[in-house]
Amino acid sequence: MPLTELVGGVYAASLTPMTRTGAPKIGLAVGHIRWLLQNGCDGVAPLGTTGEANSISLADRMALIEAIAAAGIPPNRVVIGTGCCALGDTVALTRCALDAGFANALVLPPFYYKGVTDEGLFAYFSALVERLGEPRFRLYLYHFPQMSAVPVSASLIGRLRDAFGAVVAGLKDSSGDWANTKHLIDAFPGLRVFSGSEQFLSDNLAAGGVGCISATVNVTAPLAARVLRADPKERDRLQGELTAIRAALQGFPMVPALKRILEWHTGNPAWRNVQSPLVALSEIMATDLRREIADFPLFRDQVALVAAAPG
Amino acid sequence: MPLTELVGGVYAASLTPMTRTGAPKIGLAVGHIRWLLQNGCDGVAPLGTTGEANSISLADRMALIEAIAAAGIPPNRVVIGTGCCALGDTVALTRCALDAGFANALVLPPFYYKGVTDEGLFAYFSALVERLGEPRFRLYLYHFPQMSAVPVSASLIGRLRDAFGAVVAGLKDSSGDWANTKHLIDAFPGLRVFSGSEQFLSDNLAAGGVGCISATVNVTAPLAARVLRADPKERDRLQGELTAIRAALQGFPMVPALKRILEWHTGNPAWRNVQSPLVALSEIMATDLRREIADFPLFRDQVALVAAAPG
Repeated sequence: MPLTELVGGVYAASLTPMTRTGAPKIGLAVGHIRWLLQNGCDGVAPLGTTGEANSISLADRMALIEAIAAAGIPPNRVVIGTGCCALGDTVALTRCALDAGFANALVLPPFYYKGVTDEGLFAYFSALVERLGEPRFRLYLYHFPQMSAVPVSASLIGRLRDAFGAVVAGLKDSSGDWANTKHLIDAFPGLRVFSGSEQFLSDNLAAGGVGCISATVNVTAPLAARVLRADPKERDRLQGELTAIRAALQGFPMVPALKRILEWHTGNPAWRNVQSPLVALSEIMATDLRREIADFPLFRDQVALVAAAPG
Repeated sequence: MPLTELVGGVYAASLTPMTRTGAPKIGLAVGHIRWLLQNGCDGVAPLGTTGEANSISLADRMALIEAIAAAGIPPNRVVIGTGCCALGDTVALTRCALDAGFANALVLPPFYYKGVTDEGLFAYFSALVERLGEPRFRLYLYHFPQMSAVPVSASLIGRLRDAFGAVVAGLKDSSGDWANTKHLIDAFPGLRVFSGSEQFLSDNLAAGGVGCISATVNVTAPLAARVLRADPKERDRLQGELTAIRAALQGFPMVPALKRILEWHTGNPAWRNVQSPLVALSEIMATDLRREIADFPLFRDQVALVAAAPG
């Protein structure tokens, strides 16, 4: 396997720390990625939904990609979100990633127009592959219908696999619908299918998937890594705890809540900032969140996280 | 009224002609705008939903804005779509429009994240106004919940008007919900409210709105202009025909159908092209479309349109 193919396993859809005006804090973002890779993550997926990519200007996204490359993060542990509404922007961002050494891109379907046809989506992804003209490119389709409102159907995947083979390398299924994930794993042997939540980590791996790419892994990575490596009985117990944490976190606005936990872990108040249209967690919600997570052993161990985290 | 304030009336959300690979054909786009202004339009709204703006790269959108300015199209007859998902991109595009002399921008709310709060949208639009720091700027809010999946609520409008006064100049209501449009006209005296369809043109003007900004005006402009200027009795008859044409066109994928009609009008096959994820009208649909519109007097008069249209 060339060094650009994803290793699989536990991936964090890594958060993007920001200034108070919503510009990415690039040094802190790279430090967080390094910390994730040292604390349980097999890989990271920067500039996805959790990374607020679509709220960051194209120029700033490119700067972040180049900084991740300059920091020496191994390309086979990175899949970068590059999906915009405009094909030309997606091509530019994906080419930036390729030029920086990152062959794996997680690409949303164009999400402004709703009710579009698979024919139109096939034309979009085909044009992306062809314009890049880069055999190294590995496309990971990003299925998140609740957010994009444009689904990636099984028939679209099949058509793209038939046309472009191994370039259509995988998919992240953030639908939360395990039956859909299972169906895709079964229907497309060789397609590297990630679940969008660590709640499905054990099921995904048992079914032949390659792992999870998840928002909450930004704070659950050490535990998720233990699920991956545990013996079957221990795995069930650890997966149960992991799933319970995920469920607790889902009661809060996801990105603001995760950023608040990172603030607590690192002591760095910059972690509180989000870009509009998201808003930082209110103090009332923050109090609820702290109470909600306090009893999980993972978070009781916060001191260790603080010690290890980038400042 | 300074020369940058919109004149109101009948506005076409102007189509963007494209190459077969989806790049804007800038000369043809400018020629189409000029033709619209000479054939019934009081103004144009380039780079909206109908103009496939969100499928065009940022760089190409900027080039089109500059070409419209270079062609000497009067700024008080233009409102340019500049709303992206990322605040930084929206600022850059709106600044490009302002630098080119266009003070009026039609701005979508950021549309990737769904279920966002008015607080987050207020922060977004506030930051836009403040970063531009340009008293000439006139913000037209773009309410199109079926497409953006992020509505512009009356309470958000009120908060923005309170904070920024006349800079929050107007709104385009593409919801198709006349009761909502009427409510906004009544609730916000001085707010320049456009309907998103010429089907509501007479009602909008009678209620105190300022006109329509509509996709179908790309092909109905001469008739829509007559509605605007007719005496009350004649107006009802003409509005009836206009509404019937609009209803007929709504049975087809809107942008591809309008582009096909422009191809018939001008004889220029480039008009057939759309950017993915939209797809060109199939031949079967084109045959249906031609039959559907053939009996309207407006379209029986096609020869005149061909003679007047840019080649």
